[in-house]
Amino acid sequence: MKKASIISIGSEIMRGKIDDTNSTYISKWLTGLGVIVDQRISVEDDVKKINDALTYAKESDLVILTGGLGPTDDDLTREAVAEYLNTKLEYSEKTWSRIEIIFKKRYKNIPESNKKQAMIIPGCKVINNKVGTAPGLFYKNNKNIIVLLPGPPKENKLMIKVFLEKKLRKLGYGKEKIYTKVIRIYNAGESIVADIVNNMGLDCELGYYFNQNGWIELHFTGSGKDAEKINKILSHVEKKLKGENLFITENEDIGYIVYKKLKENKLKIAFAESITGGGVSAALIKYPGASNIFIGSTVVYSNEAKMNILKVSEATLKKYGAVSNETVIEMVKGLKNIFDADIYVSISGIAGPTGGSDNKPVGLVHFGFSVNNNDFSKKEIFIGDRGRIISKSINFVFMEILEMIGE
Amino acid sequence: MKKASIISIGSEIMRGKIDDTNSTYISKWLTGLGVIVDQRISVEDDVKKINDALTYAKESDLVILTGGLGPTDDDLTREAVAEYLNTKLEYSEKTWSRIEIIFKKRYKNIPESNKKQAMIIPGCKVINNKVGTAPGLFYKNNKNIIVLLPGPPKENKLMIKVFLEKKLRKLGYGKEKIYTKVIRIYNAGESIVADIVNNMGLDCELGYYFNQNGWIELHFTGSGKDAEKINKILSHVEKKLKGENLFITENEDIGYIVYKKLKENKLKIAFAESITGGGVSAALIKYPGASNIFIGSTVVYSNEAKMNILKVSEATLKKYGAVSNETVIEMVKGLKNIFDADIYVSISGIAGPTGGSDNKPVGLVHFGFSVNNNDFSKKEIFIGDRGRIISKSINFVFMEILEMIGE
Repeated sequence: MKKASIISIGSEIMRGKIDDTNSTYISKWLTGLGVIVDQRISVEDDVKKINDALTYAKESDLVILTGGLGPTDDDLTREAVAEYLNTKLEYSEKTWSRIEIIFKKRYKNIPESNKKQAMIIPGCKVINNKVGTAPGLFYKNNKNIIVLLPGPPKENKLMIKVFLEKKLRKLGYGKEKIYTKVIRIYNAGESIVADIVNNMGLDCELGYYFNQNGWIELHFTGSGKDAEKINKILSHVEKKLKGENLFITENEDIGYIVYKKLKENKLKIAFAESITGGGVSAALIKYPGASNIFIGSTVVYSNEAKMNILKVSEATLKKYGAVSNETVIEMVKGLKNIFDADIYVSISGIAGPTGGSDNKPVGLVHFGFSVNNNDFSKKEIFIGDRGRIISKSINFVFMEILEMIGE
Repeated sequence: MKKASIISIGSEIMRGKIDDTNSTYISKWLTGLGVIVDQRISVEDDVKKINDALTYAKESDLVILTGGLGPTDDDLTREAVAEYLNTKLEYSEKTWSRIEIIFKKRYKNIPESNKKQAMIIPGCKVINNKVGTAPGLFYKNNKNIIVLLPGPPKENKLMIKVFLEKKLRKLGYGKEKIYTKVIRIYNAGESIVADIVNNMGLDCELGYYFNQNGWIELHFTGSGKDAEKINKILSHVEKKLKGENLFITENEDIGYIVYKKLKENKLKIAFAESITGGGVSAALIKYPGASNIFIGSTVVYSNEAKMNILKVSEATLKKYGAVSNETVIEMVKGLKNIFDADIYVSISGIAGPTGGSDNKPVGLVHFGFSVNNNDFSKKEIFIGDRGRIISKSINFVFMEILEMIGE
């Protein structure tokens, strides 16, 4: 199998200011292409450091560098690779005209400093950047391949997609595959899932990963030849977990799954959000064509808003409080007077850190639903900090909608 | 200054299944301790690979390895480090009893395989694990320090906090500090900012980072002794950039800055969101106490919602369209009838990828404002994909609010 190294460059990584998500993305992509990632290295924008990393990675068939291709003096990846290859950068007029075009679409004048980005390694192929100014570089000699990609994830992902993957496939990459299937499990502890699954005696590589936004990913991995076997194991596990009342989805943003389901079923939805403050709506409108399924929402954060817009009665708010079955039911009823949708959902809860009491602790969330003129409510108590409680509330709304629509 | 290397081990990292957040955390912690992170390396659980990484990192004063300390056959970090140090692991009865205690708290029987975790490097200090079974190891000779930490973030973070930081400080670490100041610049290209700043001939280390959510970070870095000098440079740069009409904030979530400013000035706000779909509201309610400044919003995604809730006239929508000065002005006027706030903002735009025309391209966004009964509108054309256009619209709302309230 082909072997690769990934070198990510930049002080924001070295100082822990950002996660090195580029290396994660490239590792995943290479793994899917059947390439073994031999090592990942991160260093500062420093010619000697980048050189040392290239030397360390010299046994790899493919070396991908990300970052350090910007227009400023501290962007030194091009210079370091040229030095490593014992050559000198040369100015490319053709590359410069492309950069000018991209730049002028966005701004008026192109600064002189951008000319640095038109310096290329002799003999390399320049990879066009359609969403930024830094071109990528693809260099191949009889020993290995060295690829320079810009740091911004959007830019390097696009280059991988439109250029690099095709180029590598042409060079014989991608013949041996690794097969991975992933499912997400919502609202369950990692050890509970592990306990159930470990007792099943499954014959494939398994991984459990806890996502900060409130779900567990279960990864089933094998070689390309094992695809059918893995699919069988997967559906066996899914059945088992569903039998334990766990909520499972494919490996997709749950907001997107809801969006697709609503669209398929030609259903329109409206929300009255209090604790989630617009987050449920925002999670749906990310997807183009959201207007087909989403009419509108009211973000009724204050009691005043609940009364003025949704006509929740002052008496209800006083007697039962803003976080109560009674209030969320009046909230969905109010929604129906404003919007003409098929499904109405209201959410009111206590995100904390303060505002909780013995009766109504931080994490308490009430949900109101109205479908086919049938109004009902649900109550949950979520654990975690403010952000986690809000995310779990958003996830819960989506889980309930999916349960309602059915598989 | 002291120099360090971080080596993270495990196939979930090498296959891109998870981000290497341990290395991010350790990098940030070391930077705060005034230690320069020379390189970060990630490899599979493989004795030769780990050995190569240790050799690559041999110039570092401190090498921290994470992962590969589990009880299974594919956990090989201990073995690899012993081989690198030319020594043999030895069984520690004392360590084994500690592991037994931890294990028996959670499960009934302790598997024999866990004995592997009681194998230690001769001469090392064993670091107790209070939340898992794998102990950490701290090894020091006259050349450098090698630390082995378990992979689970909860476990290694706790070891750093209760043991490693104190130990390193005793050994003279943490005396030299790194001083960094960061500002954010909104709505400008990286090279424009670089051109302005580079011509100022500043005497400190500078870094430019482009954030995916639409701002540029400018990092000013020096040693702890340079703090005053750097603060002077920073205010000099800020003045210059403001003179060029660039919008600058401290290094804080702009939503949080708006939240603080509104609170300080005892101002309440309400939104009518179309293109941002609840995202502006959601960005404010993240912060505890948001109810002091945020009354509510209407997410009027459809024309129907704009008419029903905000009483935007059908004639206006027909004549000028939903994305127009006229509509956003009617939207803020409508908001005023629903909420009693000090500032009202409406947003309507075309996020794409479809729905644009020659007159109204994708990226066109109209904003309506009403403050002290003064209604006015603004228009922007943002470049980028759907997500970027939505983020930029949210940023623009916050920038305008900050301009309005004043510094």
